Amino acid sequence: MTVSALLMDFYELTMCAVYFAYKPQAWATFDLFVRKLPEDRSFLVACGIKEALLYLKNFSFAREDIKYLKKFNFRPAFLNYLAGLKFTGDVWAVKEGTIVFEQEPIMRITAPLCQAQLVESVLLNTINLQTAIASKAARIILAAEGRAVYDFSLRRAQGQDAALKAAKASYIAGAAGSSNVLAGKMFGIPTIGTMAHSYVMSFDTEMESFQAYADIFPKQSILLLDTYSYKKGIKNAITIARRLKRKRFNLSGVRLDSGDLARESKRIRKVLDENGFGKVKIVASGDLDEYKIKRLIKIGAPLDSFGVGTKMGVSVDAPYCDVIYKISEITDKQGGFVPTMKLSQHKNTLPGRKQVFRIRDKKGTYKKDIIALETEKIKGIPLLLKMLDKGRLVYDDFSLKMSRKFVSRQLKSMPHRIKDLGKSVSFSVEQSVKLKSLVRKVGRGILELDCCAGEKYD
Amino acid sequence: MTVSALLMDFYELTMCAVYFAYKPQAWATFDLFVRKLPEDRSFLVACGIKEALLYLKNFSFAREDIKYLKKFNFRPAFLNYLAGLKFTGDVWAVKEGTIVFEQEPIMRITAPLCQAQLVESVLLNTINLQTAIASKAARIILAAEGRAVYDFSLRRAQGQDAALKAAKASYIAGAAGSSNVLAGKMFGIPTIGTMAHSYVMSFDTEMESFQAYADIFPKQSILLLDTYSYKKGIKNAITIARRLKRKRFNLSGVRLDSGDLARESKRIRKVLDENGFGKVKIVASGDLDEYKIKRLIKIGAPLDSFGVGTKMGVSVDAPYCDVIYKISEITDKQGGFVPTMKLSQHKNTLPGRKQVFRIRDKKGTYKKDIIALETEKIKGIPLLLKMLDKGRLVYDDFSLKMSRKFVSRQLKSMPHRIKDLGKSVSFSVEQSVKLKSLVRKVGRGILELDCCAGEKYD
Repeated sequence: MTVSALLMDFYELTMCAVYFAYKPQAWATFDLFVRKLPEDRSFLVACGIKEALLYLKNFSFAREDIKYLKKFNFRPAFLNYLAGLKFTGDVWAVKEGTIVFEQEPIMRITAPLCQAQLVESVLLNTINLQTAIASKAARIILAAEGRAVYDFSLRRAQGQDAALKAAKASYIAGAAGSSNVLAGKMFGIPTIGTMAHSYVMSFDTEMESFQAYADIFPKQSILLLDTYSYKKGIKNAITIARRLKRKRFNLSGVRLDSGDLARESKRIRKVLDENGFGKVKIVASGDLDEYKIKRLIKIGAPLDSFGVGTKMGVSVDAPYCDVIYKISEITDKQGGFVPTMKLSQHKNTLPGRKQVFRIRDKKGTYKKDIIALETEKIKGIPLLLKMLDKGRLVYDDFSLKMSRKFVSRQLKSMPHRIKDLGKSVSFSVEQSVKLKSLVRKVGRGILELDCCAGEKYD
Repeated sequence: MTVSALLMDFYELTMCAVYFAYKPQAWATFDLFVRKLPEDRSFLVACGIKEALLYLKNFSFAREDIKYLKKFNFRPAFLNYLAGLKFTGDVWAVKEGTIVFEQEPIMRITAPLCQAQLVESVLLNTINLQTAIASKAARIILAAEGRAVYDFSLRRAQGQDAALKAAKASYIAGAAGSSNVLAGKMFGIPTIGTMAHSYVMSFDTEMESFQAYADIFPKQSILLLDTYSYKKGIKNAITIARRLKRKRFNLSGVRLDSGDLARESKRIRKVLDENGFGKVKIVASGDLDEYKIKRLIKIGAPLDSFGVGTKMGVSVDAPYCDVIYKISEITDKQGGFVPTMKLSQHKNTLPGRKQVFRIRDKKGTYKKDIIALETEKIKGIPLLLKMLDKGRLVYDDFSLKMSRKFVSRQLKSMPHRIKDLGKSVSFSVEQSVKLKSLVRKVGRGILELDCCAGEKYD
């Protein structure tokens, strides 16, 4: 899926038309980061890096795009420039699945000013979606305490792109698979499916519907028990399990999609066990999220796996991340990079080319992060890696399985309080002494040069 | 943008494999509707009908899709059947932009059972997204009381598809345009853009940045005033406005993106007016939603238009609709349609082939809706129209401008209490006597035949 270069905010084009005329040689560095964590999040799982890099690598306007842009009265020289444009900058980014906190650059772009500006919105859009979903999914995975979580969100995800990316991002975060067939094909993630209530209803009796399914899929039947009543449902399922057993097959599982999942699952587990079907799994679904799953597990509901749809697929309690894309340095007339920052109430940004270092304690648990200048030597894991060099991809470690393991490893190294699903708590993110000093210096410079923040109107 | 037929939930394929083997001749009717309105909504604006119909019209598996499906051990005859499959059903749907309430069918599909089942998830996905966004946008449009609202949501929308559909759905709901360039091209909606803080910061002084912009876009400059301070910003903007005036151009507007928008806009309006620039518009942006806009207008903020991003583009307080797709009739062995329904706690569905009639009072205001059987004659506007006939599109009134006018007309005819943005209130949606009687009859039949809802476990 290539992205049209026209997918951008119009102001990116108007600003670049000015840059092209007034500062065609200028370069700049932009940081993409989350300004503030969503209310109920103590950490984020950065995701979407691969698609963001591929977008940059393949960025170019089609002939018909340029033709379309003529209607806006841009100068012909600018349109000619756009027609030949490629992305030739350097990009540093965190690895897919890196746990990040607010203010930490997820991606750092150093490129000709126009190029860096034109790609803003798609970079934000890409990282925003997948980071929101991966972060929500990680919470659900933590709540499930090792039980399998499946993505069932296609029908309620915000569009087709979102549905595919939700399957992918939740898999990276630790989900076991997805019901989305196309996502399975595109990303190589496991595909899962059961049956719907309408399926059961389309037969004269529930028993007939179960029997037909078991005939066609004797090795992989998961029977939905709540179309009419759990009592009847489990009775019919036991009959099917017996019939399958006679043919040397095992009923794979039963699915509970409504009602009191704890009570029903306990009863159903008992009926299954008493009838010698201790290996039949119980899958739960129906409006699940991390809180419900945590509660179910806490009260001992014998559930083996969870199908999670809407709540994970749209990250319902935090359907976006506060991702922003801010300039941190720009070249002066001599071509040297000069750090810059935004000085606005509660919305200051950090100047200069930065790196994030993650520090562990003696036991290997993550202790704190330090945002520092790129040139600083700090004992810790540098989170930003060079991924594009002059527009060329120089990093290719994007195996989903690797990213998934990486998320799991990081979650193990995180302090427990950060993994708690209750009130959000802060992980310690410091600024290095040199960065703090640069902040002061650049801030003073801006105040002297141009600004009068805090002054009153005349 | 064609949709891959593989974009589906896996259970749609497994269920169809069973249907294909056991009831290849069966037909069914499914209703797509919203089970329950989101907490803070009193009405929804149904949207996405066009894309849903085009998906059905073009539905078919590519050769490589069939090849891919072989890995799941489906029977060859079933895969052959899929390879030749087209959608040949009849579809009734509400017009794009129709105001709907819970339980009212937005779309009614009558088709061979397999076909109707395979398309479930994409239909839900398509209508869910656009209905969620159009419904949120309609609230924001109402709050703006005639002032222009622009979609600025590309960067925070849930993916690329969502960003494009958000621009389209909000335009249908009444937005004046979008910053999304590709959406402008694809849907023919007005494109708008200003400048970013990083643009202003990329120049040595704010004044230089304004001057350069005005040089390139003398007819369409909207200057961003809050990069350093509003006081300095408006002073510089006045200077630019004067310079433009000397060249017989008018400064188009100024944009306020942070701080106390009411206080700042009043001050800035005053400065503009005192300097003879009464026609320069003030655009507000920055984390806006219907509540903030309503408050700004209530306290007399002299704002001319609003750029609304995230909150509208992800429908942040209700990022999904509770859309479901439920079977309402199925053919028996003789091929006659038999009504059916789901009998589950709080989740009953309505059987039979239905129509929705909207009733006005004497003044023309919408009074109530009646969900009835299709065959009933009821004096009211029938909301469902035939749009696909045996898979062929027989309706083509999808002009965005027409849909937009239709939304505006309906909003005018809605009772005031429904348009209030406070607590959600119910519009009266009744079931016809015949429908109620069918519900009782079908319900009794299911209970006798198969079910023992409410009984205890043995």
